[in-house]
Amino acid sequence: MKQADFGVVGLAVMGRNLALNIESRGYTVAVYNRSSARTDDLVKKHADKKFVPNYTTEEFVQSVKKPRRILLMVKAGKGTDAVIEELLPNLEKGDMLIDGGNTYFEDTMRRSEKLAQEGINFIGMGVSGGELGALKGPSLMPGGQREAYDLVEPILTQIAAKAPEDGKPTVTYIGPNGAGHYVKMVHNGIEYGDMQLIAESYDILKRVLKLDQEQLSQTFSEWNEGELNSYLIEITADILTRQDDLGSNKPIVDVILDRAGNKGTGKWSSQSALEVGAPQSLITESVYARYISAMKDDRLTASKILHGPDYAFSGDIQSVSEDIRKALYFGKIMSYAQGFDQLRMASNHYDWHLPFGELAQLWRAGAIIRAQFLQRITDAYTNQSDLHNLLLDPYFQKIAEDYQNAARRVVALSVTAGVPTPSLSAAVAYYDSYRSSVLPANLTQAQRDYFGAHTYERTDKPSGEMYHYSWYDEA
Amino acid sequence: MKQADFGVVGLAVMGRNLALNIESRGYTVAVYNRSSARTDDLVKKHADKKFVPNYTTEEFVQSVKKPRRILLMVKAGKGTDAVIEELLPNLEKGDMLIDGGNTYFEDTMRRSEKLAQEGINFIGMGVSGGELGALKGPSLMPGGQREAYDLVEPILTQIAAKAPEDGKPTVTYIGPNGAGHYVKMVHNGIEYGDMQLIAESYDILKRVLKLDQEQLSQTFSEWNEGELNSYLIEITADILTRQDDLGSNKPIVDVILDRAGNKGTGKWSSQSALEVGAPQSLITESVYARYISAMKDDRLTASKILHGPDYAFSGDIQSVSEDIRKALYFGKIMSYAQGFDQLRMASNHYDWHLPFGELAQLWRAGAIIRAQFLQRITDAYTNQSDLHNLLLDPYFQKIAEDYQNAARRVVALSVTAGVPTPSLSAAVAYYDSYRSSVLPANLTQAQRDYFGAHTYERTDKPSGEMYHYSWYDEA
Repeated sequence: MKQADFGVVGLAVMGRNLALNIESRGYTVAVYNRSSARTDDLVKKHADKKFVPNYTTEEFVQSVKKPRRILLMVKAGKGTDAVIEELLPNLEKGDMLIDGGNTYFEDTMRRSEKLAQEGINFIGMGVSGGELGALKGPSLMPGGQREAYDLVEPILTQIAAKAPEDGKPTVTYIGPNGAGHYVKMVHNGIEYGDMQLIAESYDILKRVLKLDQEQLSQTFSEWNEGELNSYLIEITADILTRQDDLGSNKPIVDVILDRAGNKGTGKWSSQSALEVGAPQSLITESVYARYISAMKDDRLTASKILHGPDYAFSGDIQSVSEDIRKALYFGKIMSYAQGFDQLRMASNHYDWHLPFGELAQLWRAGAIIRAQFLQRITDAYTNQSDLHNLLLDPYFQKIAEDYQNAARRVVALSVTAGVPTPSLSAAVAYYDSYRSSVLPANLTQAQRDYFGAHTYERTDKPSGEMYHYSWYDEA
Repeated sequence: MKQADFGVVGLAVMGRNLALNIESRGYTVAVYNRSSARTDDLVKKHADKKFVPNYTTEEFVQSVKKPRRILLMVKAGKGTDAVIEELLPNLEKGDMLIDGGNTYFEDTMRRSEKLAQEGINFIGMGVSGGELGALKGPSLMPGGQREAYDLVEPILTQIAAKAPEDGKPTVTYIGPNGAGHYVKMVHNGIEYGDMQLIAESYDILKRVLKLDQEQLSQTFSEWNEGELNSYLIEITADILTRQDDLGSNKPIVDVILDRAGNKGTGKWSSQSALEVGAPQSLITESVYARYISAMKDDRLTASKILHGPDYAFSGDIQSVSEDIRKALYFGKIMSYAQGFDQLRMASNHYDWHLPFGELAQLWRAGAIIRAQFLQRITDAYTNQSDLHNLLLDPYFQKIAEDYQNAARRVVALSVTAGVPTPSLSAAVAYYDSYRSSVLPANLTQAQRDYFGAHTYERTDKPSGEMYHYSWYDEA
């Protein structure tokens, strides 16, 4: 009996679509799912395809060619540990497991180390693109042993999306152990930031400029023709054209409850930024915006008690709308500058040597955050591979400078009007902090030395030399 | 030989000062320090006092009356584990260890559980007030077994500070296991927020209004006479009067380097807010502000490349200065509302049943964040013990409403002028989010359903019922 080229465990929609994608490239794919119904469903619906169904893990492992390449698409967390425990007794030295779930990178680091002791290679792979991406071409972020990656690279290259700019597949080797899942986590954080910037723009257009549904959709549609061109802007324009499917005769967005869910990756991204010392305020504000949206009952109560300013817009809709477009692009630049800075700091912290330029390039297609903009980042790192911060690249520097005043006007407008723009405000504060040669942290240091004798550095002495002031009689 | 009433391990400045404080209340105090020099120094300098010096842990433990009450004041982390390991063989069932370090609350939970298995009680106690507070009266936040707390309450009550309003000691039982260290952690987060709001106010007064050093000091000094009255405002006014002690003839703040350090408690506070789902944006922005201040070399480079707006202030200094004062108070209210909301959510998450009203009361004296303002919070919880959010209390509601426009003007001003106000901006965004009956998270939910089939709730259906829209042909 012919052995399969590849194995897939877990046939929920993501696993199933990845299995179909791999099979479509000419590979025989062994499949296994804890409940057999999904396995049967897949092979029945695709009887003409080269799937090898299995109903025990032992049988499944035996059906895959050595050294085995097995993709796990199961619920991240304890589910992943359980499947690994089940597979392990049947695996042999040199086999490889690939975890394609939304796994916390520290779990991947732990599993990588444990499996390496058994002689099993482990790839923690971020997968972006949702269901459709999995089927037609996702963006892939694999981390683990380099030699393991080399064995699976041909398949990953084939199933990944191809960038429209140069046809390059959106996959590359990210780095050791948890590096792939870390990069995916930051990708998701950036996705939170992009979505929040869009939500804030929509909110100002709707609540301050009072655009109607058609104008809202039209605005995002126009924005998608320019430098904001991206998947998320495109689907926003599309969403805003849709009517309720349950017959209320309202736009669907007006019957969707304003309580945002989250799967934890944005949270992890911010927690890690705090850990590695990266000032990633825009993404964090977008996570908090989801949290506060989830407090719907609190907000309903508070809305009756806490009043806002009296405000009526009297500006020019065209020109303010253009300001909002520029503010959104400005915010996006700050968010990616922060995200890439977090990656740089994490790379040092974990000694990963992340390939920064390649990261932007592999988000150009397949990924949820795919955008024309990512070609600009790719170019920035191509021009200067050791670029310290995106804002120091000439293109981003110029846009930031040119668009800053639009962003300032939009924040001032929304703050005056009482419409919250936490992420856009964070963007402006980041820009102004990052370009400040002197920040008021001198006062903070004086206070810390005053009440806690924490000492401080001086402007006229070498960095690292600590001083203490006799603020009071300490006898 | 008379046995000691109490034991202290670790005689660096905090341990030494607490030992002196306890001794001064009439107790005999056994002391031990890993290196004997500190022990010798203490007993030599205070030969007239009831200290029992010890040079081995065995001897030390034996010298304390049973059931033993032993305070650990050692470097948090591995140092604490090491000391516990050393003491443990000498302890007996019913003895009690009190960890007064700045310990991460999850470490306290772990140690509490482990020691309970050995029959040893464990109190994780937050201590605020710095060196002077330790000596003269700190604010204490003890968590652990209730019966252990009862055994040590008389001493803690005596050494704690006394609130100026009613003479109550600033200590109370916080809750089980890690509750005390958690509350201290949030206290420190709030302290970061207070300090950052002061730093931003100082920065606007200096960089936008161009006040000179004397005017700056005078302004904080005046503010300290009113509702902003607090330790941190008081020391700010004092700091701003001080000249360099190394002879530069400049104010000391102008020779202190603007690179803020941190000991990690603010970071933990924000990481935990993210974990329990609390929108604690103001404190988090203040942590990020320290991080970005630490990137001094980056900022020096960026300051030459990234230009800000052209701006020259032409307003009325008196009236804008009063706006800044109100904005600072408004920001403080938002910060405490967020901090107490985090405590509420953590209390549910860990099942701690925190005594919210008492927390504010025990920060009224001793603690670094001590302020007149805390009496207002104490009153709010006295009036309504199950108060859901500080903003719903009539006093805070009124101030927030009355001062919001000043805060809006200050944010608009600083955003226009190019001076960063991340925490104050976060305060306004929080107020406007919290009082919004509808946020743009409906669009976020539509996007999540579009690209990831994450489903959404509807405004016209019961909460918890999930819906999915057929955005495209998913066959």
